[in-house]
Amino acid sequence: MGDEAKGRAVEELAALVGGEVDGDAGLLITSLAGLETATAGQLSFFGNPKYKKQLAATRASAVLVPLEAPPRQGPTFIKVKNPHLAFARIATALQPPRAYAPGVAAGAFVQAGAGVDPTATVMAGATVQRGASVGPRAVLYPGVFVGEGARIGADTLLYPNVYVADRCLVGARCVLHAGAVVGADGFGFAFDPEGPAHVKIPQVGIARLEDDVELGANSCVDRATTGETVVGRGAKIDNLVQVGHNSTVGPLAILCAQVGLAGSTEIGTGAVLAGQVGAAGHLRIGDLAKVGAQAGVIADVDDGAVVLGTPSMPHKGFMRSSSFFQKLPELARTLRELEKRLSALEKGRTS
Amino acid sequence: MGDEAKGRAVEELAALVGGEVDGDAGLLITSLAGLETATAGQLSFFGNPKYKKQLAATRASAVLVPLEAPPRQGPTFIKVKNPHLAFARIATALQPPRAYAPGVAAGAFVQAGAGVDPTATVMAGATVQRGASVGPRAVLYPGVFVGEGARIGADTLLYPNVYVADRCLVGARCVLHAGAVVGADGFGFAFDPEGPAHVKIPQVGIARLEDDVELGANSCVDRATTGETVVGRGAKIDNLVQVGHNSTVGPLAILCAQVGLAGSTEIGTGAVLAGQVGAAGHLRIGDLAKVGAQAGVIADVDDGAVVLGTPSMPHKGFMRSSSFFQKLPELARTLRELEKRLSALEKGRTS
Amino acid sequence: MGDEAKGRAVEELAALVGGEVDGDAGLLITSLAGLETATAGQLSFFGNPKYKKQLAATRASAVLVPLEAPPRQGPTFIKVKNPHLAFARIATALQPPRAYAPGVAAGAFVQAGAGVDPTATVMAGATVQRGASVGPRAVLYPGVFVGEGARIGADTLLYPNVYVADRCLVGARCVLHAGAVVGADGFGFAFDPEGPAHVKIPQVGIARLEDDVELGANSCVDRATTGETVVGRGAKIDNLVQVGHNSTVGPLAILCAQVGLAGSTEIGTGAVLAGQVGAAGHLRIGDLAKVGAQAGVIADVDDGAVVLGTPSMPHKGFMRSSSFFQKLPELARTLRELEKRLSALEKGRTS
Repeated sequence: MGDEAKGRAVEELAALVGGEVDGDAGLLITSLAGLETATAGQLSFFGNPKYKKQLAATRASAVLVPLEAPPRQGPTFIKVKNPHLAFARIATALQPPRAYAPGVAAGAFVQAGAGVDPTATVMAGATVQRGASVGPRAVLYPGVFVGEGARIGADTLLYPNVYVADRCLVGARCVLHAGAVVGADGFGFAFDPEGPAHVKIPQVGIARLEDDVELGANSCVDRATTGETVVGRGAKIDNLVQVGHNSTVGPLAILCAQVGLAGSTEIGTGAVLAGQVGAAGHLRIGDLAKVGAQAGVIADVDDGAVVLGTPSMPHKGFMRSSSFFQKLPELARTLRELEKRLSALEKGRTS
Repeated sequence: MGDEAKGRAVEELAALVGGEVDGDAGLLITSLAGLETATAGQLSFFGNPKYKKQLAATRASAVLVPLEAPPRQGPTFIKVKNPHLAFARIATALQPPRAYAPGVAAGAFVQAGAGVDPTATVMAGATVQRGASVGPRAVLYPGVFVGEGARIGADTLLYPNVYVADRCLVGARCVLHAGAVVGADGFGFAFDPEGPAHVKIPQVGIARLEDDVELGANSCVDRATTGETVVGRGAKIDNLVQVGHNSTVGPLAILCAQVGLAGSTEIGTGAVLAGQVGAAGHLRIGDLAKVGAQAGVIADVDDGAVVLGTPSMPHKGFMRSSSFFQKLPELARTLRELEKRLSALEKGRTS
Repeated sequence: MGDEAKGRAVEELAALVGGEVDGDAGLLITSLAGLETATAGQLSFFGNPKYKKQLAATRASAVLVPLEAPPRQGPTFIKVKNPHLAFARIATALQPPRAYAPGVAAGAFVQAGAGVDPTATVMAGATVQRGASVGPRAVLYPGVFVGEGARIGADTLLYPNVYVADRCLVGARCVLHAGAVVGADGFGFAFDPEGPAHVKIPQVGIARLEDDVELGANSCVDRATTGETVVGRGAKIDNLVQVGHNSTVGPLAILCAQVGLAGSTEIGTGAVLAGQVGAAGHLRIGDLAKVGAQAGVIADVDDGAVVLGTPSMPHKGFMRSSSFFQKLPELARTLRELEKRLSALEKGRTS
């Protein structure tokens, strides 16, 4: 929050996002906040008509609003096409990237034969094994482990206790949150009835994260049995997510918290899986498909489809069926009554 | 279990919980156990009438029982209003708190400008960054990371590999189990169609745990986009739980394992969310509400309500509807038959 | 992947698994791959008739096939009873176990009074507390914590940041993946209305993993309130799984990713719980039972039963009911129409 003390003029921030000022262009903005909590000197944003009341009541100095916003009453408006995106850009501008002292700290365990770029930061308590490489300006917090032959791209941030297993690949500008695990063994066993025992299938493939991937705290991307488990460019994965071995998460896909992909699951470009969704293996969820929270996917999902439920079905059908699910006892009662009335009629006819 | 060897008299333990002894008040109790596994010298408890048989068969020396317990047959009884609570209090008395050697161990990474109370314990391999503070008698196990400006309250216990991010606040007498993550970035992105890219929204808020909070192993409480994510006083959170950014967990609330709160979710005082419950964002689950296991909450839940199902509905309605769900094929068959019979009747009438 | 460069003859590999060669027995195999990605020098396997096309198109040099395989067209066949198991055995043979330098590394924190076998490997940044023991050839990666009095069996592998709490027991030949937590406190509290407060019940039992157990990344096995939480011999547990206190997972059971067992849950020998299954406490899932993904188990499941759904029911019934669930709006409409037609008939009769 370095620049907060100083602040930046509304005019300057508007220029940054191609916005138009309606109100006092010279106001100084020091930080951002939601409509309800913002105070003087803060910029907020209004993107959803649902929050009209909060807009009317806000004490923010300025608000990012869409072009079609209601007439201004209190705070200064910055009118933009996409207030949410503008908020992100301004927040980034107001929040200068944290500066890290480059170099390998005393107390870090960097093995001989590891290649750490001199501009990278390796904190005390982090480990880099031989044959691994750490790119320019990458940051390794304490407890991070980068295994033999693994590679960490430029400007990538590994928070405390992140594990990147041997030979696994993490692209540039990635963010791996605390406790994330990349490249633990896929869950593969063959049953030997004569043991009896589950015989482990060596997992000799790798996990590969492309550029600009974010991986949430304590999330896991398993290494492949053979070949690769892949998380595509710009995909964003929340906390406590499981990506099974040999799965492919498409570029720009979004996996919300606690999602689980069984293995050899294919997620299309820009697909969105809401919280706690589970997807079976050996299936494909199409490009730009949306899977609602807690859905259980057991068959392919078409590109652009919106599904929900376990097993998953079209979203609208699920919501409609759910409303009838609640009325099932009533429907059953009606059915029993109809049967009685029908029997009475039949009796009357034959009598 | 330090006092076990010595033991304490039934009389003394009864006094501790305001109980009345029925039987041998001088018996020595050295430890606690369940009705089925207890042996001589052990105290057990009987709270649920379902376990009458186990009570009759137990080999425990003494049993905590409710005031309205069945007549005593074998072991000595300690009669109390709330056997479960009495069990907790006696277990605590028999289990003296573990003693930790105060001080910062060699091999710990405490940065200059960090404030560690001299009575706190910082083990080798733990990190405390500048500007952070660690309160009296707090304990940091190896692999713990306390970020810049974060604060850890008195008597708080951070098990191995717990991460408390910069500026986040943890109250007094909290217990954070291994791998818990406090203050990783909230999951916030704005889509830029021109990238195309998901643009990260800097998460400049914090996460704050009030006093007496317990946070389970590998659970995550994300920091807020702006403002705070809060876990209220005395709330207890089990393992692998996700608390999304800007959520508020009320005082004394209970979140069982693998619960997920999407973000800006509000959980009331004393509410209980059973295992694997998911709650969408921007909604409120009321005070003392109970949400059954695996439920998916997508709308506000009233104070004191008991709900179940996805989407969640009143508990009784769900159980009734579920029983009919199993009979759906039968209901559909009956419906088809009625239709045939009805058609036959209609035909007969018009013929 | 040490032997890959050299390779082994098809003949030799066939002998290893009691297979019969159909084709060129002298071909050199250097590694394994799936049917679709395999190239020259690689061995693949064909176990599921569903993949006939892939078998016809594969560029693998050789393929493990079942005895009843279709006639050979391209690659050499190794005919075996169980191709999947043979694949596992050959993969193991081609993948020599990783060699670890024995000894306690500088930078490891081994307390006085800990017993570390001289053939074990304790890497820098790992902790072994007093009274703990580490068996022959066991491997502790950085960030591993073995608490007071805990025991780690021979040939067991503890990946980075694994936590084994005080007094807990891990058998021989176990594999605990990164971030796994063994023996964090069970989730037990008694409510004191006078606080009001949830009073912690000390969790004085332990967690015990028998031999040949695999525990996934960031999975948690809680310690018992009193007594033991047990994971039986040869059981395999995937990532992000929660095993509640006092639960028993039977030998050879399989718990897929994100499964949750509430506590005092009993899982039979060889039972399989698919991804995201939840099981309530104080119930038993029988030997060799199969529980489908996302099911919610709230009552005992018989030995060998196959169940699905929340609450769980027989698998076939669930699938049938689910297909009717999707037709609920239609069924309700039919019901309304029948009622109208019936009323018309009734009216006609009485008129």
